[in-house]
Amino acid sequence: MRVELLTVGDELLLGDTINGNAAWLGRRLADHGVEVTRSVVVGDELDVIVAAVGSALERADAVITTGGLGPTYDDLTRDALAAAAGVALVRDPHLERRLRERVAKAGRELQPMALRMADVPKGARVLPNSAGSAPGLRVELPGGVVYALPGVPFEMRAIMDEVVLPEIARIAGPPAVARRTLRTARMWESVVATRLAEVEAMDGVRLAYLPDPAEVKIRITVTGADAASRLAGVEARVRTLLGSAVYGAEDESLDRVVHRLLAARGETVAAAESLTGGLIAAELTAMPGSSATFAGGMVTYATEAKAQLLGVPADLLAGHGAVHPDVAAAMAAGVRDAVGATYGLAVTGVAGPDTQDGRPVGTVYIGVAGPGNSHTVVSPKLPVPGAGPEIRAVIRRMTVVHALELLRRVLMGLDAEGGSGEAQADREDRD
Amino acid sequence: MRVELLTVGDELLLGDTINGNAAWLGRRLADHGVEVTRSVVVGDELDVIVAAVGSALERADAVITTGGLGPTYDDLTRDALAAAAGVALVRDPHLERRLRERVAKAGRELQPMALRMADVPKGARVLPNSAGSAPGLRVELPGGVVYALPGVPFEMRAIMDEVVLPEIARIAGPPAVARRTLRTARMWESVVATRLAEVEAMDGVRLAYLPDPAEVKIRITVTGADAASRLAGVEARVRTLLGSAVYGAEDESLDRVVHRLLAARGETVAAAESLTGGLIAAELTAMPGSSATFAGGMVTYATEAKAQLLGVPADLLAGHGAVHPDVAAAMAAGVRDAVGATYGLAVTGVAGPDTQDGRPVGTVYIGVAGPGNSHTVVSPKLPVPGAGPEIRAVIRRMTVVHALELLRRVLMGLDAEGGSGEAQADREDRD
Repeated sequence: MRVELLTVGDELLLGDTINGNAAWLGRRLADHGVEVTRSVVVGDELDVIVAAVGSALERADAVITTGGLGPTYDDLTRDALAAAAGVALVRDPHLERRLRERVAKAGRELQPMALRMADVPKGARVLPNSAGSAPGLRVELPGGVVYALPGVPFEMRAIMDEVVLPEIARIAGPPAVARRTLRTARMWESVVATRLAEVEAMDGVRLAYLPDPAEVKIRITVTGADAASRLAGVEARVRTLLGSAVYGAEDESLDRVVHRLLAARGETVAAAESLTGGLIAAELTAMPGSSATFAGGMVTYATEAKAQLLGVPADLLAGHGAVHPDVAAAMAAGVRDAVGATYGLAVTGVAGPDTQDGRPVGTVYIGVAGPGNSHTVVSPKLPVPGAGPEIRAVIRRMTVVHALELLRRVLMGLDAEGGSGEAQADREDRD
Repeated sequence: MRVELLTVGDELLLGDTINGNAAWLGRRLADHGVEVTRSVVVGDELDVIVAAVGSALERADAVITTGGLGPTYDDLTRDALAAAAGVALVRDPHLERRLRERVAKAGRELQPMALRMADVPKGARVLPNSAGSAPGLRVELPGGVVYALPGVPFEMRAIMDEVVLPEIARIAGPPAVARRTLRTARMWESVVATRLAEVEAMDGVRLAYLPDPAEVKIRITVTGADAASRLAGVEARVRTLLGSAVYGAEDESLDRVVHRLLAARGETVAAAESLTGGLIAAELTAMPGSSATFAGGMVTYATEAKAQLLGVPADLLAGHGAVHPDVAAAMAAGVRDAVGATYGLAVTGVAGPDTQDGRPVGTVYIGVAGPGNSHTVVSPKLPVPGAGPEIRAVIRRMTVVHALELLRRVLMGLDAEGGSGEAQADREDRD
């Protein structure tokens, strides 16, 4: 079954909004073995939407549209589907009543324009929206079926999961494809790809490399007979070739792995951050229940704060500046003791775009202080990804990954500097 | 001049990557008065890429492709452009030499597959890539021009800004359109749109509403004669209609506004965070030079840490739990004093998906402690956006915005609860 996506909205063509909905839909459908063959974005123009729906249904069996179902002047998807089907828009009394009730319950006034959301192309099926005001629509056209969804992400996802995906999965049948995503940290994409060349050459096996700053996800797709059982063998081979660089699979992000390792031992970690400014703590509090293993954090951004809040010796800072491995070690021990955690994790370095204390952009020291006097400090050479203000965010993100990975290695008793082949880049550098 | 975007890559259709490049390109071109009329994503299939380039050039004057220029098996854009032009791929000796030098300088081995990046469709122009290995390409076809760029974001942006945009801007001529984006916090999108209905009705004026959690950006586009001068009048009217909800324009994010206000008075702020887990501190350290106004932060995620690190009275926590306005006030004063800042900013609340201390998801208290005993606490009723694990991230983000907005209002002497009409939602709710 071939599905195309059609995203409607000027704001997407103007670049004001990034198309997260299309990515989510592509993934969800792929998980159900349904291939998205094309994804198109058009603006808020009636004729263009009608034409795009038509040409999509020449190529595919179904089209999923997002956007254009709101109440404002530029919401034209309902009108476009009615035009494509050659029918009129009809006011649905049930939808109107529900809309009025919803607005009254929130203690607000119904704006007349909002009633457009109770209009339905004659003959279309309404797809109930439990999370918002505008319902989805299912319209049958000569070339196939159109599922029209709201553009608001969680409303779109609710209707997809509750109504549309079950119907599509029923039509598509069971998938003859098996997928698995493995996650690595600190290994350059080119090194990963070169090591996995033998796997790439296997019949019916496809690898996709998805780089992020200091991380590479490898999506393994196995097609054909016995796809699921063959996948297990392929995964094992990939893990052998990449070694300890592989830290998890699927949605098992580094923070979740760290929480799991700490929780299993009844231990906690506290974070002291300089250049990352709170991003490590934010990562370690993203998961519900993280307070069991994340004890607290400090953002000691200015040099003085490192002495004042963490007890980093003032003469160390005076002699070497804030960007120094001994400072990272002292910060880690300091936050561990100040917060009362089992481990302290600390970072200090230069995020850019300016140098600091004479140290170049990308200089980073990461320290982990464990029970007693145990400590580990690493100094990854972060590749500086181009120039300009955006390197700051990339270097901050790379540092977060390196920090969580160091903590994982310490907790697992792995070599602190191992598993990278060479230092990870956030760009597709090729050997 | 009409331009279409063509993004190449299976990972985009599978939803593993979100199409940030298309958004950036759309915005960059719009800033130069060039309209992106369609944005298409296709997979790594030679025939599909060739066909997509052809149909795009039937509709538009130029196509910008991203992706498919790397060295691996699925990088097919070079081949597709050669096929579309009916020419062969030719090895460029200059590119090959540069590639070998680059790899040798980094102390690594040249992988044979990498030499594909030195192949060029005969007659095409190479667009130098100062930030990476794979050059861009410019190919003239019967229907128009194709600019092929790497998929790696900062490499793509470098080639666009250095080579392609100047050429396109020259061809397109000066734009007869003027744009301005205003930024608001805490006001529901539907309230914004209803208040601006009179502006929407003006000739040659178009408004786009771009909602984010607790923020709405309004993109004003004025077309026609005297667009720039008419824009000034439209902006003034919008600001009058929305009042103090407007906090800035263009890229002037809330954190930058806060930094500017503090820097002008030589003052600083420290942040104490519970549910936001470090995101406020990360926001306030995103800007280079932020250490002048951001003094430091603490992530007091567990209840005990609020007493231990911030001096929140233990009996207050025992009596009311951590989710209470007095706790927010005590946290704000505590971090202000512990770090030694002019202001303390604190948040405590329930991010979900579980309730806490009997308080429902979305209950949040935000406190600002100023010099002396001045303090302000607000309790925004955050609308809970659906259900499921993703509400946690949305509620955290909304809280960050509400916190920065409260600080802005305190610094500007504005009513702490004003400027919202009604509480801001992160979804398109309609009155």
